[in-house]
Amino acid sequence: MRHTFAIFIGLIFFALLGSCEAPPATEAATEDTSEETVEQEAAEYAIVIHGGAGTITREDLTPAQDSAYRAALNAALDIGEKILQEGGSALDAVENTIHYLEESPLFNAGHGAVFTNEGRNELDASIMHGAERLAGAVGGVTNVKHPISAARSVMEDSPHVLLTGKGAEQFATEQGLEIVDPSYFYTERRWNALQAAIQREEEMGEAQVELDHDEKKGTVGCVALDKDGNIVAGTSTGGMTNKRWNRLGDSPIIGAGTFADNATCGVSCTGHGEFFIRWAVAYDVSALMAYKGISLEEAATEVVNNKLVEVGGSGGLVALDRYGNVSMPFNSEGMYRGYARPGERVVAIYKE
Amino acid sequence: MRHTFAIFIGLIFFALLGSCEAPPATEAATEDTSEETVEQEAAEYAIVIHGGAGTITREDLTPAQDSAYRAALNAALDIGEKILQEGGSALDAVENTIHYLEESPLFNAGHGAVFTNEGRNELDASIMHGAERLAGAVGGVTNVKHPISAARSVMEDSPHVLLTGKGAEQFATEQGLEIVDPSYFYTERRWNALQAAIQREEEMGEAQVELDHDEKKGTVGCVALDKDGNIVAGTSTGGMTNKRWNRLGDSPIIGAGTFADNATCGVSCTGHGEFFIRWAVAYDVSALMAYKGISLEEAATEVVNNKLVEVGGSGGLVALDRYGNVSMPFNSEGMYRGYARPGERVVAIYKE
Repeated sequence: MRHTFAIFIGLIFFALLGSCEAPPATEAATEDTSEETVEQEAAEYAIVIHGGAGTITREDLTPAQDSAYRAALNAALDIGEKILQEGGSALDAVENTIHYLEESPLFNAGHGAVFTNEGRNELDASIMHGAERLAGAVGGVTNVKHPISAARSVMEDSPHVLLTGKGAEQFATEQGLEIVDPSYFYTERRWNALQAAIQREEEMGEAQVELDHDEKKGTVGCVALDKDGNIVAGTSTGGMTNKRWNRLGDSPIIGAGTFADNATCGVSCTGHGEFFIRWAVAYDVSALMAYKGISLEEAATEVVNNKLVEVGGSGGLVALDRYGNVSMPFNSEGMYRGYARPGERVVAIYKE
Repeated sequence: MRHTFAIFIGLIFFALLGSCEAPPATEAATEDTSEETVEQEAAEYAIVIHGGAGTITREDLTPAQDSAYRAALNAALDIGEKILQEGGSALDAVENTIHYLEESPLFNAGHGAVFTNEGRNELDASIMHGAERLAGAVGGVTNVKHPISAARSVMEDSPHVLLTGKGAEQFATEQGLEIVDPSYFYTERRWNALQAAIQREEEMGEAQVELDHDEKKGTVGCVALDKDGNIVAGTSTGGMTNKRWNRLGDSPIIGAGTFADNATCGVSCTGHGEFFIRWAVAYDVSALMAYKGISLEEAATEVVNNKLVEVGGSGGLVALDRYGNVSMPFNSEGMYRGYARPGERVVAIYKE
């Protein structure tokens, strides 16, 4: 009898122990991630990038195109990794890596950006520094060669976070950033995409304002962790083909397309921007980690593969935490992506 | 011995039970608030408004001004409450309540908005519906009489969330919204505030771009809960006196200045917008409730009186949850605010 009683108490004991371990969030989780990760050693540096998510399948890309995208992703990672290896800042790594992606005609950012309904290139970018949550962004600029640098300048040289349109261009000019003729952003491929979108719209009737969502793919982003433990995230885009009315998507919106906090993670998003704004996607990954004490991978997957999928918000994100753990979830067919850590390099396009 | 053993086991048992209750967040909290609040009965309706937070003390306002503000807040609440009492939607209540505040010269929204450095009125507004998290916003419009209605139209009549500048004005015109001459927004008080800000700036030297933060007070916002359980939040503002470069603050940013989700709460913010963007304030209140299972009051207080205070982000917010509980925290000297529920009416200005 006494033996049975002890076993009974023992079972309750372990059942309770088990139930105590189940809830991942504790009060302490606001300031810290779960106990498991606390003991993790931080990577010396880490960098992760994306070049947009969308309907990207093996059948869509020729072997030459496939190679060109992988080469561009590797070249971009090379730039950021070199800066981090030499002890440079995550801020410089993110800015310079995105410069390369903005200059590449392969991606929908800078040169190679998609066209608005009016046949213009309106560019958006944002950047956030995880130490003090400083942030800067520009929306709808048409003549700034590197929108990501304009975003950095807003963060560093103005009391504001988000400048738009002509005012943002004036600010960039005053700050001595490189100004180009709007024709610099032209690529035949994106011009043809606009003509095709307009034609489809005409065939579907004037009242049809549905956009060519698929042609949004190509937004670029980068998140880096440096030796000082600073996490910086940046995003740059041309938005959606055939967009109207000076529409801004999530890329210039801190908390939606870009977020960074050294205590949790850095995030850069790509996808159907309106959903990423309404679901505060970039910040939500951080909030899940902070408030529920779950890992970066669990948080990023929850947002991209559960929450966004439930409501039809297509896209993905790249993120890293303060230990250099990387997450690159997407719910579309593919996402141009890659990351580098000491002795480690991954570049990928499809679900693989 | 046997007795001692049982007591020992019993102590461990209760110690474990206690430790299990301690963490407020559980997996279920993602979908639901804490068990305590589940049993609460929802108010038939509730509406809460603000007319801006800032350096507002009893000494700042004459008795006549004090009365004028209280009368305006009551009149605004009357409009929204009547709609809700008659079974109307939270969406209509929020829009029409904000119409009144936009038309009042007392507040920094619509007629009575502050001036930019260039001597213009650039208006921002956003609205969000908690049922499906639909949202709309406009930034930097100069000729739309009711920016909150333009935001609603973006939500209902476009595939986008955020339109800006000339594009947003074109959209509002196409949708048949009331367009006014920009001089409609002029008030002598705000014009004089700009002249004073420019003069202070000149005295402090050309390089000085610090803004007159105090003159930002007056942003308006409204959150309502209707009989169908829908929560809608809206915010409208003229931004900061002497702002430059088509700066956008938090008011047109979903997740920063405005957020609504029927499962958690609706929030409208007012304050130093750059901080509210970087701290994703409106969404953060919702995230704290969802992920930590804490109450609206706890979540709103945590964000406004702890997080924002730590970093020097001045301002406040009004919010309500799905039961009609209201929270109106602010960390400045005062906030024009008020709420109404069946048989209950509160209007306040100072810390009281």
